[in-house]
Amino acid sequence: MKAPVHIAVTGAAGQISYALIFRLIAGDLLGAEQPIVLRLLDVPEAMRGLNGVMMELADCATPVLNDVIISSDPKVAFDGAELAFLIGAKPRTHGMERQDLLIVNAGIFSEQGRALNEVAQRSIKVLVVGNPANTNALIAMNNARDLPTQAFSAMTRLDHNRALSQLAQKCRCPVTEVKKIIIWGNHSATQFPDLYHATVKGRPAMELVDPQWYVDDFIPTIQKRGATVIEARGKSSAASAAHAAIDHMRSWVLGTPADDWVSMGVSSDGSYGIAEGIVFSFPVTVVDGRYRIVSGININELSAERLQLTEKELLTEREMVNHLL
Amino acid sequence: MKAPVHIAVTGAAGQISYALIFRLIAGDLLGAEQPIVLRLLDVPEAMRGLNGVMMELADCATPVLNDVIISSDPKVAFDGAELAFLIGAKPRTHGMERQDLLIVNAGIFSEQGRALNEVAQRSIKVLVVGNPANTNALIAMNNARDLPTQAFSAMTRLDHNRALSQLAQKCRCPVTEVKKIIIWGNHSATQFPDLYHATVKGRPAMELVDPQWYVDDFIPTIQKRGATVIEARGKSSAASAAHAAIDHMRSWVLGTPADDWVSMGVSSDGSYGIAEGIVFSFPVTVVDGRYRIVSGININELSAERLQLTEKELLTEREMVNHLL
Repeated sequence: MKAPVHIAVTGAAGQISYALIFRLIAGDLLGAEQPIVLRLLDVPEAMRGLNGVMMELADCATPVLNDVIISSDPKVAFDGAELAFLIGAKPRTHGMERQDLLIVNAGIFSEQGRALNEVAQRSIKVLVVGNPANTNALIAMNNARDLPTQAFSAMTRLDHNRALSQLAQKCRCPVTEVKKIIIWGNHSATQFPDLYHATVKGRPAMELVDPQWYVDDFIPTIQKRGATVIEARGKSSAASAAHAAIDHMRSWVLGTPADDWVSMGVSSDGSYGIAEGIVFSFPVTVVDGRYRIVSGININELSAERLQLTEKELLTEREMVNHLL
Repeated sequence: MKAPVHIAVTGAAGQISYALIFRLIAGDLLGAEQPIVLRLLDVPEAMRGLNGVMMELADCATPVLNDVIISSDPKVAFDGAELAFLIGAKPRTHGMERQDLLIVNAGIFSEQGRALNEVAQRSIKVLVVGNPANTNALIAMNNARDLPTQAFSAMTRLDHNRALSQLAQKCRCPVTEVKKIIIWGNHSATQFPDLYHATVKGRPAMELVDPQWYVDDFIPTIQKRGATVIEARGKSSAASAAHAAIDHMRSWVLGTPADDWVSMGVSSDGSYGIAEGIVFSFPVTVVDGRYRIVSGININELSAERLQLTEKELLTEREMVNHLL
């Protein structure tokens, strides 16, 4: 039998994790033949609920699940982990300024970065889902001095999937016919969902849609989709976020197809003039578990403006948490 | 491309369905190559939330999902369905007698039975998850006059999985080494989780465990597991129930292995002296999509008593809803 892969999940008692971990034990990420050990982290107050989740995990009686560890100590949760989903983050509450939110989460993610540095596998892949995801990933990365920047990424795959789905719907074609969507920048309302390089059944997407629809309808729909879902459900996206997290990790572990790329928030290497070091969503390809930012994409005037706007937001966020980097 | 399979889910805006349908569109039931159409039913008040779920389904951008229909009309939801998960049921609220609960749900399931009868595929497989599951299945079945009784079943697979997991844990072996667990009777506290025929690594389970542990610890643990999970989580089992529903449907569609059986609540044919017609959980094997109650199992004295107890409860339930049969 294969050795189990240790997968850490933070915010494990929350809604996104609840949607995620039962898919992990069904084999949706690594296949039904690969046993896993779940290492679940949450705050001490959540341990009772997490204990209930652990019971339900056992009650699934799936051969994929080798063991479950629950803890409120990041060093226990990350010990020997090969994959980590950092989902837990403090949500913004009434009266909280954006800066307060950034700083509270910066505290959490700096501690987790240090713990990962100390106890995780050197080959670990860390996906940050908890918001503000890009800057949380930046902080974790910078506090894990001995781990490569390649080990960290932030999730914009949900935005990517939303863009894919909206374009496919508009063109009345299956999602499999849509390629080369890009989400640039921050996982926030400044993100830029770029269709200038997308294709639909091999044809340029921008030849198939009205440019006005793209700017006035498509872009804001993607940027505000999270809020629209909250309005309808009364709760934030959980199952679709978990689905995107699995998609992101699968692409990272198994690679991207030859004729497509995916969007991932990764450490900027200065590509496309984006300030080095911030965690920015780029189109990437993955081979052998290593992502590479796609180079040589033509940036038109509208794109350049949008890229600068979302870069500016990320620079401001970095400024606010600078003391923890 | 294969023609899509239409799958109906009731109580679609609820927690179990939320855990279920995102696994269906990931291909966990019929595989990633089989497109599906989801037909989601819930009450009119739930349509807004269900609309949010539909957005999230689209946001997953999965090629498995061909289309989604949402409705509060069973005849729309069941139209052309080949598989149906009947999850929605009224929960027991404060001050409600058991009989009130049975009757309220009997109304729902008789209407759904008639709708299935009218519009579903003749080959439909209906799994009732909503409680009281056995009697709800009985009512749906009896109101679908033109569909075979083979088309209906009630879920005891969660109990089956719980028993499997608890026994594996006790014997410190993987769940794959445990075979021939039986859940007899009602999906309620009177159910009888039978280990007398179970094997662990090919050896009789009862040779490996203390008979006192079995009676005093194991049986009540399985019978009360649902309540224990609620106590810990503050919510009832959702993801593990969804997992069991997929397991149940997979066994029904794809068949059972040659060396094992599963537990399903099905219409009694009088086997083991159980009153004909009530929906009772038996050990079954499945070949070519048809279940068969396993015959020739030896029933010892303790088992006989337990079987009578749970049968009696089901007979009482039937009595209460007799006017709808």
